[in-house]
Amino acid sequence: MTAALPTDRTHAELLDAGDPLAHFKDRFAWPDDESLIYLDGNSLGPLPLATKARVAEVISSEWGKGLIRSWNSCWVTLPCAVGDLVGEHLVGAAPGQVLVSDSTTVNLYKLANAALDAAQAAQPGRTVIITDEDDFPTDRYVVQGIAAQRGIELRMIRTDIDLGFSEEALRAALGDDVALVSLSHVAYRSGALADMARITELVHESSAFMLWDLCHSIGSVPIELDASGADFAIGCTYKYVNAGPGSPAILYVRGELQNRLRQPIWGWFGQRDQFAMGPAYDPVDGIERFSTGTPQIIGVVSVQEGTKLLAEAGMQRLRSKSTALTSYLIHLFDEWLAPLGFRLATPRADARRGGHVTLAHPHAKQINAALIASGIIGDYRAPDRIRLAPVPITTRFTDVWDALDRLRTLTADGSYANSTPEFTRVT
Amino acid sequence: MTAALPTDRTHAELLDAGDPLAHFKDRFAWPDDESLIYLDGNSLGPLPLATKARVAEVISSEWGKGLIRSWNSCWVTLPCAVGDLVGEHLVGAAPGQVLVSDSTTVNLYKLANAALDAAQAAQPGRTVIITDEDDFPTDRYVVQGIAAQRGIELRMIRTDIDLGFSEEALRAALGDDVALVSLSHVAYRSGALADMARITELVHESSAFMLWDLCHSIGSVPIELDASGADFAIGCTYKYVNAGPGSPAILYVRGELQNRLRQPIWGWFGQRDQFAMGPAYDPVDGIERFSTGTPQIIGVVSVQEGTKLLAEAGMQRLRSKSTALTSYLIHLFDEWLAPLGFRLATPRADARRGGHVTLAHPHAKQINAALIASGIIGDYRAPDRIRLAPVPITTRFTDVWDALDRLRTLTADGSYANSTPEFTRVT
Repeated sequence: MTAALPTDRTHAELLDAGDPLAHFKDRFAWPDDESLIYLDGNSLGPLPLATKARVAEVISSEWGKGLIRSWNSCWVTLPCAVGDLVGEHLVGAAPGQVLVSDSTTVNLYKLANAALDAAQAAQPGRTVIITDEDDFPTDRYVVQGIAAQRGIELRMIRTDIDLGFSEEALRAALGDDVALVSLSHVAYRSGALADMARITELVHESSAFMLWDLCHSIGSVPIELDASGADFAIGCTYKYVNAGPGSPAILYVRGELQNRLRQPIWGWFGQRDQFAMGPAYDPVDGIERFSTGTPQIIGVVSVQEGTKLLAEAGMQRLRSKSTALTSYLIHLFDEWLAPLGFRLATPRADARRGGHVTLAHPHAKQINAALIASGIIGDYRAPDRIRLAPVPITTRFTDVWDALDRLRTLTADGSYANSTPEFTRVT
Repeated sequence: MTAALPTDRTHAELLDAGDPLAHFKDRFAWPDDESLIYLDGNSLGPLPLATKARVAEVISSEWGKGLIRSWNSCWVTLPCAVGDLVGEHLVGAAPGQVLVSDSTTVNLYKLANAALDAAQAAQPGRTVIITDEDDFPTDRYVVQGIAAQRGIELRMIRTDIDLGFSEEALRAALGDDVALVSLSHVAYRSGALADMARITELVHESSAFMLWDLCHSIGSVPIELDASGADFAIGCTYKYVNAGPGSPAILYVRGELQNRLRQPIWGWFGQRDQFAMGPAYDPVDGIERFSTGTPQIIGVVSVQEGTKLLAEAGMQRLRSKSTALTSYLIHLFDEWLAPLGFRLATPRADARRGGHVTLAHPHAKQINAALIASGIIGDYRAPDRIRLAPVPITTRFTDVWDALDRLRTLTADGSYANSTPEFTRVT
């Protein structure tokens, strides 16, 4: 299908000329070196100019001048309001089901425990958590910890690290002893995209709860939590939502479940009539009961600005551009890189792929270091992978062409062998 | 003692003229209305100009230009480095024992569970948590939740809400069934200051762990965690550390304890060799094992700037000024407010008082609303209290004089009765 595409740079320029989202690049800040190509949108998204201005305003006016009064006038409703905005534009959730709160790690801990409590209260024999052996590390570690603390079984499903977990493996693992299935919508390593509705249905056939980690899909792939029937979701906002380093995460709890669940960290922001400061914890109704401590306001505001920008571009248009970028990348891979010993470690079908493409090569670590040294930023993942993640709202087709051209050149001429890999902290 | 002080404003002006920290007020941003008096430093500290500039720089340069590379070059070591800075200047902890992480609520949850696991592993009969019935709500709720989840006893010690918990009540509650004592260094309601070394020693005599909540003391009262022998501490940074709304909290774990403890939220930032992304959670040695998810960098940077400013002023000088301000406030209370039906709800002795003073009055809610409407910001606490918290690094003696003068006027003339209390979100 893609073989008919030309490989000359002029074609990439034509694609850029026809890109309806091209102007969004100017809504972001960029390094002074304009030749830098950023293909690490799945680790830390770039800085929206609106966020820079808004954060400065919140700091100067709301904090500096409003002081404590801003909690009442601006901040107290923000984690829910921004949650609703994320719900409407990014994850397909009606109001009152998404909250901006804590980190992905802490949110998974809260929701998985709440789900397990509810499942076991209803049916004591439901003691198993299922996850994917190649799920993102923090997800695996959190559920490992929970399983150890509760003395229950963590059932890992076998995964092809190039293709993501298989429906067959999940089906084989399911049974009437399963309380909760926790999986990623897009696999961090391969970029494989799961069929949320279908998998959720499968899990519900076993009467288990379904929790989705949206970290690598939110802001890149349209998500329909309500329509899929998902019970829970978590996700970070510093990747494709472009909310900055360590910005707060989101959590989703399906409305009808909320008031019969309790999360384990009984913090005062989840308390009914919080400022009565009463003697006993009594969680408020609704999504706020999944709050813990005082929310980080600068981060919540950054999520709001990042979300508004994505909403303006439109998730369907972003997804169209994202798949156009990654399929073009795979086309150039086929033409240029496969003959040089690279292997595609991402599903080839558009419908099975999130926003990034992973290429395997025995010398991936050094090749990636050479690529970064040359001003093209992707990232390396053990043992032998380079992940290339165009930022749908800003990356150009010529960026993809230039990156792949550089990659073939430094691999073909062996110059990558002189590079020194350095530790790069990516998420 | 204070009765000999004059009550005329000229005396306050003299005290301001002799204040060695007076120039620090210009290091902060303030509302346009220069007559506003801010006595809510125990809820949200004011904005340091250095923080405003530094956050703008981190956003523009480190995020905007450095992009993902800044994790490696700037950010990855920051939660520990800023923890060490806090340790050195604010809480008396040698390096490697303080981490900037999550919220106070989440940190208490992590450390209390880690402590209980260790105590019960050593002595299964140690199943009790002791706390103070008037401890800050989130602290009480968190340990209530933990006690419920673990099926253990939460033993509340009786407290005089004007004077804080008593040593006698604690002594009576201690025994060989106690695993952990969790108390606040400064009581949020009364401002009572506990004797950290003495209480810690008492708790250790029962071989229980001691955890201190420093929220209402850090940045206001000099703290010596190492010297006191405390096992654990938590504390927020948006009050007297002036790090902004929802800035991350700190946690302290005494060095010799760290590697034999595990906290319950097994996040990837606590993992040994994090980017090997190995199959099993294996917590790194040292304070970082108490990390969870990706840290909020803007907040960590704000803690760094707030701490640097306090370090420049010096905690001993800040404490001297703080007690001078609050004892002057109590002096004016004695002269002006006691005759109007106010009652002091804070310990009178300097050594038993943190940074704020609480005044009880049957119409406190309306009086506080009238005070705020007149441009003087303190806060109301149920059922009948007004808390007045000078910010030691910025508040002037004339601010205290003006505030108390306003308070006596609007109480004496009954004009407060026309005010409408509004909900004010304070912490």
